[in-house]
Amino acid sequence: MDDHNNTKALVFRQMDLERENLLQQLKADYRQIIINYFAGNETSKGKIDKFIHKVFDYNLPVPQIIEIHMDLIDELAKQLKVEGRSDDILLDYRLTLIDILAHLCEMYRCSLTR
Amino acid sequence: MDDHNNTKALVFRQMDLERENLLQQLKADYRQIIINYFAGNETSKGKIDKFIHKVFDYNLPVPQIIEIHMDLIDELAKQLKVEGRSDDILLDYRLTLIDILAHLCEMYRCSLTR
Repeated sequence: MDDHNNTKALVFRQMDLERENLLQQLKADYRQIIINYFAGNETSKGKIDKFIHKVFDYNLPVPQIIEIHMDLIDELAKQLKVEGRSDDILLDYRLTLIDILAHLCEMYRCSLTR
Repeated sequence: MDDHNNTKALVFRQMDLERENLLQQLKADYRQIIINYFAGNETSKGKIDKFIHKVFDYNLPVPQIIEIHMDLIDELAKQLKVEGRSDDILLDYRLTLIDILAHLCEMYRCSLTR
């Protein structure tokens, strides 16, 4: 590889790292949202709002959000199993996903209409 | 009311009727989708696709979709209660709503990006 291509490869690697960082950040945010969802307080609502705006600003493909949700649910299921607790609560977290998708979808719809 | 206002009132009434008709049609479509969702065949997928396109074309506010879902779930819950059957299945229908919202959201997102 010549210098030019080396630079390109570096830029690509940098983009890859930034993308991975963002996804990890979103995953951490979503974990906080899920865990506090049924507290339903202002902090929890603020976090959801911030998450939706971040996803919107980065124009994240929706399948990625679904993937973040599924990964987290899998992780929590394993954790509950290790602790010998029921995983019934995990079904309720679908409401969190519905809430987020509905608000995000309305945000995209309104941006398109304007 | 003079003739001019009479005409306006008629036009408004007509718009109202058309809007009500569309909502009733969407409700009927959504009922078919929910009931056949776990069959997962091509007819079922085609119906979901048609529903999403219709909602998109009419630029229906997302809260209206949630309302259609909630109304239908309430209705089915009453029906199952009358028949003395468990309503556990109703929780699974949240997956249908997630599926529809995710696809619709991606459609709006891609239209905005283009």
